[in-house]
Amino acid sequence: MTRTSRVNLHPLRLTRTSDAPIYLQLYRRFRDAIAAGKLQPGDRVPSIRSLASELSIARGTVEQAYQMLIGEGYFLARGPAGTIVSPRLDGAGTSGQAHHARAYTPQSARQQATPDETEPFQFGLPALDAFPRKTWARLAGRSLRVLDTAAMRYPDPAGYEPLRHAIAAYLGISRGIVCSHDQVFITAGYRGALELVCRTLLQSRDVGWHEDPGYVYARDFLLRAGMNLVPVPVDDEGLCLRTAQQQADGARFALVTPTHQCPTGVALSLPRRLELLKWATRQQAWIIEDDYDSEFRYHGRPLPALKSLDQDDRVLYASTFSKVLFPGLRLGYLVVPESHIERFRDSARHLSGPGSILPQATVAAFMEEGHFARHLRKMRVLYAQRQRWLMDALAQTFGTELSIVKHAGGTHLLAMLPTARSDRDFAAAAQSHGLAVQALSRWRVSASNPGGVLLGFANITGPEHARVLARRLFDATRTG
Amino acid sequence: MTRTSRVNLHPLRLTRTSDAPIYLQLYRRFRDAIAAGKLQPGDRVPSIRSLASELSIARGTVEQAYQMLIGEGYFLARGPAGTIVSPRLDGAGTSGQAHHARAYTPQSARQQATPDETEPFQFGLPALDAFPRKTWARLAGRSLRVLDTAAMRYPDPAGYEPLRHAIAAYLGISRGIVCSHDQVFITAGYRGALELVCRTLLQSRDVGWHEDPGYVYARDFLLRAGMNLVPVPVDDEGLCLRTAQQQADGARFALVTPTHQCPTGVALSLPRRLELLKWATRQQAWIIEDDYDSEFRYHGRPLPALKSLDQDDRVLYASTFSKVLFPGLRLGYLVVPESHIERFRDSARHLSGPGSILPQATVAAFMEEGHFARHLRKMRVLYAQRQRWLMDALAQTFGTELSIVKHAGGTHLLAMLPTARSDRDFAAAAQSHGLAVQALSRWRVSASNPGGVLLGFANITGPEHARVLARRLFDATRTG
Repeated sequence: MTRTSRVNLHPLRLTRTSDAPIYLQLYRRFRDAIAAGKLQPGDRVPSIRSLASELSIARGTVEQAYQMLIGEGYFLARGPAGTIVSPRLDGAGTSGQAHHARAYTPQSARQQATPDETEPFQFGLPALDAFPRKTWARLAGRSLRVLDTAAMRYPDPAGYEPLRHAIAAYLGISRGIVCSHDQVFITAGYRGALELVCRTLLQSRDVGWHEDPGYVYARDFLLRAGMNLVPVPVDDEGLCLRTAQQQADGARFALVTPTHQCPTGVALSLPRRLELLKWATRQQAWIIEDDYDSEFRYHGRPLPALKSLDQDDRVLYASTFSKVLFPGLRLGYLVVPESHIERFRDSARHLSGPGSILPQATVAAFMEEGHFARHLRKMRVLYAQRQRWLMDALAQTFGTELSIVKHAGGTHLLAMLPTARSDRDFAAAAQSHGLAVQALSRWRVSASNPGGVLLGFANITGPEHARVLARRLFDATRTG
Repeated sequence: MTRTSRVNLHPLRLTRTSDAPIYLQLYRRFRDAIAAGKLQPGDRVPSIRSLASELSIARGTVEQAYQMLIGEGYFLARGPAGTIVSPRLDGAGTSGQAHHARAYTPQSARQQATPDETEPFQFGLPALDAFPRKTWARLAGRSLRVLDTAAMRYPDPAGYEPLRHAIAAYLGISRGIVCSHDQVFITAGYRGALELVCRTLLQSRDVGWHEDPGYVYARDFLLRAGMNLVPVPVDDEGLCLRTAQQQADGARFALVTPTHQCPTGVALSLPRRLELLKWATRQQAWIIEDDYDSEFRYHGRPLPALKSLDQDDRVLYASTFSKVLFPGLRLGYLVVPESHIERFRDSARHLSGPGSILPQATVAAFMEEGHFARHLRKMRVLYAQRQRWLMDALAQTFGTELSIVKHAGGTHLLAMLPTARSDRDFAAAAQSHGLAVQALSRWRVSASNPGGVLLGFANITGPEHARVLARRLFDATRTG
């Protein structure tokens, strides 16, 4: 499938007297060679070791350039099979940006991204370079050998039992949630969890509170499922409960992100948590707690889940492995009240479920053997660093033009624009230059100022990378 | 997790003068030892080789007994890890049937079957003993090594592209369907395909034709999706088109199994195929073709798919890997008209999709390297043989009490009962003895006589096994 590079990249004419550091020159050379068609999609590029030796530069320098090229989708690292020019880059274009220009729309970025594209700043993607792929492959290989004819049958609609045990144990230790594995349903991502809730407890045209701004994909999903959503503003204590009650006290459900409100990052305050639970009990309403990235909190004590305070079984706790492992797994889970297990099992039997057992068995082994906890600890340190890199680079490049909202955690920054600027225009300009920036107003139902942008930082591999991206963002969005 | 067998099974007191052949004595001994609690769930049993050598009998004899025990869920074969007593057998019971008695309901058999249970006669399960597991594990292991960070991202909502190419090529050669990979959507089983159709082309309360009797799980799914189903009788040319048109000519869709009507096995005649297509064109209605096991036809020429005659793009072609590979994969696919690709992509983006890439990559490799075609050829021979074994055993045991409907293929038999007998009673009696027999009337909407039962034969491993099962069925359902 892959050809060896047909063009000789050398002499690269790298110069130590240039303004730009060597890694950046290297990065640009490769980008230009691809744009000019000298390197074609699928071409193999030299190994880091051999290029470093040929150019008499440090391996770390080559590695830095390669990581940027991989991070931006120009290169594709295939482990022992070597690194190639991404097969999906179709055709040339100035500065290699042509392939980014086609049909990028933020609404569908989460799903549309084809396998070997990375858009810088992409929202919701974990650090792909830092995932322990070798350990993962080893565990998956082992699961493969141990799995027997049992794995060939129609699976349990609630998911692979050992994984449900591992999740129940993890939630008890890390999120303060006491539950049995019978309450845990493995789903095909967060969407699968929402679908299970809709099919089991809700009906078309049910009224539900939704955070505004709030997770746009969940909103889309619920609207398509026929729900009647009431947008509820978010302030610095999270969902404005008073407003919600004034607008629709009789709502049937509330969808909340209490740990890090998505996308503003605020935590729902304890008084509001208790009020929300009280409301749900009184109204016999359901609270859907989306706990998508609570693991990533970089200072202060970790907040327990809302579910941990739930005395009356009104909370449906949903989470996903997309942020803590990787989205390609397509696995999430839902914890349901004990009294509703049978109803959920019944509807799970009529849905398409979490898929094949093998990926579930691999996650179970990863959790059981302590790799999961270790990976989370490592990621917390890494993300705190990457967040800092991006914050510094943005401050340096944009000065006061962007003001970063202090986040307690997560994998993206929210940066506010000056009142006069449209965040949609800003995001569109960035997108047309291949930067996966999202406009805050796309995540809002009600019009409001000032605008802001969401910038994912999980795949920023160093301070220089952050500066290059900040600069590209600045250039792309410069007005006039 | 597993303990070594704590009881000494020997001397088994096998006797060559007994009425029963050695393998049957062995089979009963193990079953009794389990029932009596001498062998516990999870206990390891001797290897075939060592037991044969200890008892001085042929390995084939031990193997025959073990295969029956595995086939009936007493044992669990774990490849190189050895064979154990199924961990899910809870507790003792006379003749080892106690574990079968709990909560078996045919409605949910397809989904409820927990991993290490097999119910004899189970519908829709392929031959688990004949699957090339080593080849599969090798290919999966390779896919695992080759997969890179691309597989970690949010996947293409239409599924893994190389698999879509492989399916398009296969359909062209084997089913007479000319399509591009862009038209192929990988889904989480057949249910995923139906969901994609519902969300893209249909609306709640749309009227659709459904075969009567017809595939009960599809009917359930569509009813839950809010469709308004019109049952249409089936005669020896398949769906009675005239009746359908008289009842609901303006229907929005028709769900058909043209190759082997499910469960009667008849093929939709060519004149009716053409009429059906003409109707769909005239009404701008959709035909959903469920081609679930067309590969298994044991005599006569294979019928091309209805889709191959579809000039006006009215047919949505759905199939599944559950029957031709194994259901635990949870993979199916849907071929959509070229003009509707974008609409389907849009709705696929909002559904939970076909799951992780790895299983899809394994299927792709299995198809690309010719293993799939080889496996199908092998299975055609095997199933023809197993079908014959069961037909012979039923005839021998039941005489004229059961009359087998001649099937052209598939993995189950339809056997009709005498007019006076209720097939639900017959099936319930069989189920209470651990036999996964389904009543035909459960698959019908309109009451009709005579009743019948559906008997899966894919996991019957020999003529003796067939005779033992036929006998068990006879004893379980004996009246008075």
